Amino acid sequence: MNILWVFAHPDQRSLNASLRSAAVETLTGEGHTVRQSDLYRMNWNPVVSADDYAHDHAERLYVATASSRALHTGTLAADIVAEQDKLDWADAVVLHFPLWWFSMPAILKGWVDRVFVEGFGYGIRSETGGSMRYGDGRMAGKRAMIVTSTGGSEHTVSERGINGALADLLFPIQHGIFWYTGMSVVHPVLIPSADRITPPGYEVAVKELTRRLGSLFTDDPIPFRRQNGGDYDEKFVLREEHSSGSGVRVHVAAPPVRV
Amino acid sequence: MNILWVFAHPDQRSLNASLRSAAVETLTGEGHTVRQSDLYRMNWNPVVSADDYAHDHAERLYVATASSRALHTGTLAADIVAEQDKLDWADAVVLHFPLWWFSMPAILKGWVDRVFVEGFGYGIRSETGGSMRYGDGRMAGKRAMIVTSTGGSEHTVSERGINGALADLLFPIQHGIFWYTGMSVVHPVLIPSADRITPPGYEVAVKELTRRLGSLFTDDPIPFRRQNGGDYDEKFVLREEHSSGSGVRVHVAAPPVRV
Repeated sequence: MNILWVFAHPDQRSLNASLRSAAVETLTGEGHTVRQSDLYRMNWNPVVSADDYAHDHAERLYVATASSRALHTGTLAADIVAEQDKLDWADAVVLHFPLWWFSMPAILKGWVDRVFVEGFGYGIRSETGGSMRYGDGRMAGKRAMIVTSTGGSEHTVSERGINGALADLLFPIQHGIFWYTGMSVVHPVLIPSADRITPPGYEVAVKELTRRLGSLFTDDPIPFRRQNGGDYDEKFVLREEHSSGSGVRVHVAAPPVRV
Repeated sequence: MNILWVFAHPDQRSLNASLRSAAVETLTGEGHTVRQSDLYRMNWNPVVSADDYAHDHAERLYVATASSRALHTGTLAADIVAEQDKLDWADAVVLHFPLWWFSMPAILKGWVDRVFVEGFGYGIRSETGGSMRYGDGRMAGKRAMIVTSTGGSEHTVSERGINGALADLLFPIQHGIFWYTGMSVVHPVLIPSADRITPPGYEVAVKELTRRLGSLFTDDPIPFRRQNGGDYDEKFVLREEHSSGSGVRVHVAAPPVRV
């Protein structure tokens, strides 16, 4: 299979860079093809601007509209097009980053901001005019996974840990980017206590990452609800018969019972 | 009072730029002093690198350690120091941005990544060695608020809306950045359906924003739990007697009953 590994760390000698190299070696050894977007090494520009869309600076910039026009007229910046081509090629996308302020480093957020333009990542319509997102969209059929490290211990991002549960912290990415664009999301790989890791701890981390990569295409994805699967009403609000709760977790359906 | 307004939109003719100007005028008219960090206009660099810390590229970069050393030796990059000075000066901080992929635009995320270095935003110890965060820290006593716009309708970010509840989407920022560094957080101001706004709709938005700014220093803040207030155990996990639930919402205490 084809795997796009998007990596965001400023130092090639870092823990995460070593894990990335180990992962790429593992995947390649299993017969997969891996392409990388090593954002720091690429000196990736993370800042959306009118220049991305060959937009006339004298005219007011409506980001969505300008990006869509540039996509359809072939005037998107070349670095954006190159990343879109990698995404179209990939069967799975891995975002790999240290968790900075409970989200992606800016260079990676700006990869998302710039690459997923209107008509590519959002604003996609079906033949009957319905919006294609949350389980549908150009990325449908692909898998996605986050690999991330934290300085803190694992229990601080547990269900009742002070930093918030990892699944909730990552909801804007896993649901709002991956699932929104159509990708199926498998649970993240977390490397906790990253600043205190020991050589034996590193071996454990590599083993766990390797294990998870081995089932990247077979693990049950997080059962986020499909926008167009009947669970939401015409205003995209969850119907009463599907969970009586509130908050982000209502958007995950109960997993199927296995017999 | 002193208010730092951090703004992230690529076009000075945008809806958000107009709202920003109206807000600054209102605040100034009420006798406050406003300083702005207009990140696009400043051509802000959002990418953390060794150069921020005058770090020798031949040595492996440990971001936290290198940033702390640079802070304490006065070798932080000048653009970072200038923003830290504004933060120290401010009584309130407003982050104002269009919600891109359910979070901050990269240029703003990189303002957080670069400015809140170890020893300034995190890794602060009390005299007895305890960590000062989540209600304590260098930013304690300041207020913080998000002003953000979405292309979608308000009900899509409501409690059961498909995009997720706004409070949960903003948890990594409101709890993980503002509250973490010590700031008291007031509820965000949302401008929904931003791409479809009409002149009367704009007047409504200005009025609401003005109203909220009028009570910026008096509104009840979100009652996030204090790390050092007794609710968490020694591993920073919420004690059983404080809410039996899980997920990010357990970190908000029930508001006090008003008699």
